Amino acid sequence: MRFFSDNAAAAHPKVIEAIAASNRVDTAYDGDAWSQQLDGVFSALFETEVQAFWVATGTAANCLALAALCRPYGGIFCHRDAHIEVDEAGAPGFFAHGAKLMLLDGAGAKLAPETVTDAIGAIRKDVHQVQPHALSITNATEYGLVYRAAEVAALGVVAKDHQLGFHMDGARFANAIVSTGASPADLTWRAGVDALSFGFIKNGGLNAECLVLFKTELADEIAVRRKRAGHLSSKGRVLAAQILALLEDGLWLDNARAANAAAQQLAQAAPDRMIYPVEANEIFLRVTAAENDRLRAQGFDYYDWGEGQIRLVTSWDQDGGDVDRLAEAIAAL
Amino acid sequence: MRFFSDNAAAAHPKVIEAIAASNRVDTAYDGDAWSQQLDGVFSALFETEVQAFWVATGTAANCLALAALCRPYGGIFCHRDAHIEVDEAGAPGFFAHGAKLMLLDGAGAKLAPETVTDAIGAIRKDVHQVQPHALSITNATEYGLVYRAAEVAALGVVAKDHQLGFHMDGARFANAIVSTGASPADLTWRAGVDALSFGFIKNGGLNAECLVLFKTELADEIAVRRKRAGHLSSKGRVLAAQILALLEDGLWLDNARAANAAAQQLAQAAPDRMIYPVEANEIFLRVTAAENDRLRAQGFDYYDWGEGQIRLVTSWDQDGGDVDRLAEAIAAL
Amino acid sequence: MRFFSDNAAAAHPKVIEAIAASNRVDTAYDGDAWSQQLDGVFSALFETEVQAFWVATGTAANCLALAALCRPYGGIFCHRDAHIEVDEAGAPGFFAHGAKLMLLDGAGAKLAPETVTDAIGAIRKDVHQVQPHALSITNATEYGLVYRAAEVAALGVVAKDHQLGFHMDGARFANAIVSTGASPADLTWRAGVDALSFGFIKNGGLNAECLVLFKTELADEIAVRRKRAGHLSSKGRVLAAQILALLEDGLWLDNARAANAAAQQLAQAAPDRMIYPVEANEIFLRVTAAENDRLRAQGFDYYDWGEGQIRLVTSWDQDGGDVDRLAEAIAAL
Amino acid sequence: MRFFSDNAAAAHPKVIEAIAASNRVDTAYDGDAWSQQLDGVFSALFETEVQAFWVATGTAANCLALAALCRPYGGIFCHRDAHIEVDEAGAPGFFAHGAKLMLLDGAGAKLAPETVTDAIGAIRKDVHQVQPHALSITNATEYGLVYRAAEVAALGVVAKDHQLGFHMDGARFANAIVSTGASPADLTWRAGVDALSFGFIKNGGLNAECLVLFKTELADEIAVRRKRAGHLSSKGRVLAAQILALLEDGLWLDNARAANAAAQQLAQAAPDRMIYPVEANEIFLRVTAAENDRLRAQGFDYYDWGEGQIRLVTSWDQDGGDVDRLAEAIAAL
Repeated sequence: MRFFSDNAAAAHPKVIEAIAASNRVDTAYDGDAWSQQLDGVFSALFETEVQAFWVATGTAANCLALAALCRPYGGIFCHRDAHIEVDEAGAPGFFAHGAKLMLLDGAGAKLAPETVTDAIGAIRKDVHQVQPHALSITNATEYGLVYRAAEVAALGVVAKDHQLGFHMDGARFANAIVSTGASPADLTWRAGVDALSFGFIKNGGLNAECLVLFKTELADEIAVRRKRAGHLSSKGRVLAAQILALLEDGLWLDNARAANAAAQQLAQAAPDRMIYPVEANEIFLRVTAAENDRLRAQGFDYYDWGEGQIRLVTSWDQDGGDVDRLAEAIAAL
Repeated sequence: MRFFSDNAAAAHPKVIEAIAASNRVDTAYDGDAWSQQLDGVFSALFETEVQAFWVATGTAANCLALAALCRPYGGIFCHRDAHIEVDEAGAPGFFAHGAKLMLLDGAGAKLAPETVTDAIGAIRKDVHQVQPHALSITNATEYGLVYRAAEVAALGVVAKDHQLGFHMDGARFANAIVSTGASPADLTWRAGVDALSFGFIKNGGLNAECLVLFKTELADEIAVRRKRAGHLSSKGRVLAAQILALLEDGLWLDNARAANAAAQQLAQAAPDRMIYPVEANEIFLRVTAAENDRLRAQGFDYYDWGEGQIRLVTSWDQDGGDVDRLAEAIAAL
Repeated sequence: MRFFSDNAAAAHPKVIEAIAASNRVDTAYDGDAWSQQLDGVFSALFETEVQAFWVATGTAANCLALAALCRPYGGIFCHRDAHIEVDEAGAPGFFAHGAKLMLLDGAGAKLAPETVTDAIGAIRKDVHQVQPHALSITNATEYGLVYRAAEVAALGVVAKDHQLGFHMDGARFANAIVSTGASPADLTWRAGVDALSFGFIKNGGLNAECLVLFKTELADEIAVRRKRAGHLSSKGRVLAAQILALLEDGLWLDNARAANAAAQQLAQAAPDRMIYPVEANEIFLRVTAAENDRLRAQGFDYYDWGEGQIRLVTSWDQDGGDVDRLAEAIAAL
Repeated sequence: MRFFSDNAAAAHPKVIEAIAASNRVDTAYDGDAWSQQLDGVFSALFETEVQAFWVATGTAANCLALAALCRPYGGIFCHRDAHIEVDEAGAPGFFAHGAKLMLLDGAGAKLAPETVTDAIGAIRKDVHQVQPHALSITNATEYGLVYRAAEVAALGVVAKDHQLGFHMDGARFANAIVSTGASPADLTWRAGVDALSFGFIKNGGLNAECLVLFKTELADEIAVRRKRAGHLSSKGRVLAAQILALLEDGLWLDNARAANAAAQQLAQAAPDRMIYPVEANEIFLRVTAAENDRLRAQGFDYYDWGEGQIRLVTSWDQDGGDVDRLAEAIAAL
């Protein structure tokens, strides 16, 4: 029973159908009928004019955005546990030509505005120290917390005050939207976000993510950088079609709701074991080695997360019976 | 009637089926059952132990290979009309951190060994001039010619003599195999090739190419570089499955045969108009502006290629009737 | 008798004196009394407000400028024989993060406006082809020709029309000024130049060149890039003092006049052997192998420049007797 | 009275004399008589065959070494307060093409072997996390502590066990040698160090540092990288001559002894105010704001180092009277 990661889940059947349906001759790259809809569809969703770029991975979405928001000699504030720092093999340094991630602290991988402000204050304004150019947050965070719209906006004020580009890694953006109840607009550009990595792969997609630019003057640059990084698929319709399928009739929200609900069920099974509030689809539990063994012996598959901690992730297609069984098993520990 | 590019064609139905069939929970990244077969399948095909890495684009395959074969301060010999120079937005410079493409001449985008040798001879062996680290050729070339095994081998000798890494851009490798009748082994590693960008997308695939490493000691580095470039898909099975489907029962060869045969039919329609020998699935024709207009008026879609020249590309799924009609139209000019 | 290169000459005694005179405790980096004078002195010389940055080499001056004028994904037009292409070990690709030098032709390493315009016209305006961001010329050129103010201005118009940053490699700027009789202002910013690598080392300096920015909004970026490239000397006064010594009382012009005059004397010795007009301090001569041997047997040291060609360079301190002897020897061939 | 930094001091008169003495025509770049002596002189000093490369700054020496010891996709362990992290404007990321500094803790900017080992243990051995390629330490450290030979050797063992290149930033190497009494060999290559940035500028030099390679197989690469970074001065003799002057008759050791002795005198003035043991030429003192004001009112110039702390640095040419006065003033606080 898999609670390992939402990125190992199957794609939603409608995604597969959409891929099949898009399999016909069309203009190459992003000139096809599907790709050409993206700007419009995302502009409607975000209630403002945006430019949307499909890419094959979240790393590509994140790092293209960061490269456009931070010059090679600048720095990017992010949490010490941010995916871009921990799990992307140094991709931000590659895409942004040596730009430096500047690591900040905060419970549950969440950044507070004053943490950013303090960090800025500690940097001498001279040529010897790297100056920050951008701020990147993850919503939902790597520890399953969410930033509410007001929290994003408070960071957005700091970003604006210090002329920092503001990027949101939304690998689990859908989960954050469902959890906060915020509108996509309120959780992003109205709060000052310049670029969003809008995740679909962990939410029923196959291999399509979308970089949504609110700061549309970066679009030309992003288009070139995407090509230059080998991310301009010649049959781009296969990516666009996935995204459109997930956006249609709110499928992306349904999927996220399912994942979040399963996480809540697990969280309720043993509230006092939760290391962080469970706000999206990730659960971090305190377990002893013996308890860990017992869970595994029952066939549950998940991630050991350091001494005495495990990580459970629920997916859009999580089997209800599996969730029941795991909730029971946790309660019974 | 599309003769624009083989990269705009549909994917083969078996590829779509394979994608659907692989849509189940499995280990993330390249730990899944499909990805895990690639090394074995390609090793069998090439009659030697290789390591195979799926990526989403030919640009990624080419540039990951070049980055591993050329240090940032080195140079890469390639033809002046090579795709890596002309059509990849400077991606080799990005992936290889400023390494320099060193442009060589040759009819039909083909390089002769002595061209490479002469170029090497013209470079002072000092720190002021960039020293070549690698050689990259395209087979079939950007002008639809092929290198035969002996021709590759002659270049391989030069590469070896001068310690150059040897890369083959095989965006149309299948067409070259079918055209030359050579074995995959003879056309690559037995001829000294270290790394092959094995193209599938132009030959019935959707968004999966394969970087095949004959110099397997580069595998660890390539694995890291792939991740770092945002090319490690979390549901990598969707890429592996496409490749396996095309390799099964020689589907890749059938597809290439179909494309090449269509090109031959067109070539025969007006042999004296051919700018280059037609050896794969690309045809370059001499036409006057009036002739060009006449063809377009009949509904044929293709690429203008400078003054008085057009490029026609046939695909695996080229409609036979369309080919007949175009052959007729050309003959009638 | 050395006619090998002006970069092997001794420094002018006043430069050594200035170094000694500046050897006292002062603020580190460029906060010292000498460095602080540079902006003012160069602004006066160029009759406009400029910002001036000392660096230790011409390569650093060139490549810092190019990195500021060209994004990593852009291209830089330059002559095929430009120093930045031929003799800087790929430094532009390093400093500018993979930006591409786009090589143009022209007699004597000089570019004509229509050459640039044609090259721009040949580039498709899409994301697949690298788009030009900058233009770099060398004055005096690598073949000892000079651009006159009107010629620079004609290129400046092209640059402006196509939004290209415009850089001048002035390793031998002094020789060009003396040769053309143009004012520094007319030969640079009034002709559209954004940044000048103002050479001193080949003209009596020791290890100080100056990057002069006319586009002063790039100054902050250049300051950071200089530090980041390891070119911010902590005792920067040693560089500034050299530059000030050479600028004082027109010493830089006297030095260039001496070098140019020596070159003219040699040019007159055998006008029909000259491969290019001699306009600065470099002479390219046609000689047979036997003639070459004869010259070398008489103790003249110079550079063989391909089959049947030699390069002679005169320096600010060229011994008059040596020049007489060489002129005679050439005339006697 | 300057206790601000040793990098603002004057150069030793013998250095100026050496510069003047080297001011004659010679082969360009590093082919001159002075540069050609470096390998031999340093090999003798280090009792093993080394290759030595002059450069103009410590940043260049450090970052050239790191670029050769760490591939672009690797990581470099260093202390959180290391100069390469804090004060080089991200230069390691530039020279090493996005390689990542991995920050470690340790009192007084000193690293313990187990800190490195623990950090290695915490990194998953997969492609998602940056793997360490190198280790860099500073000796004497940024807080004026020294690594003794045995301490370096213990780190050397860790480096070797984990195949990490081992770099020492020796901006104050002379001070460390004098302080520890170790031989240059024992403090470096015998302890596993692969490359040393041997500092001269803070110790009486003007603008010459030396990158000493013990891992001589990197020499060719370093030579190219130096050129490519714009650090190959054409009149390199001016750099080599400075270095030779300081090495002659142990002048470098005399200078360091003078600086260290002055620091000791200050340290003894108020042992209980010392934040770190004073082992080289830097002193960090606890002072109240009022005490700070009192010192400054007496004309002492130094660096405020965060709340309640000041940094004093003594130089090779520190005036004895100034030191007496400062020692007295400190004692009197």
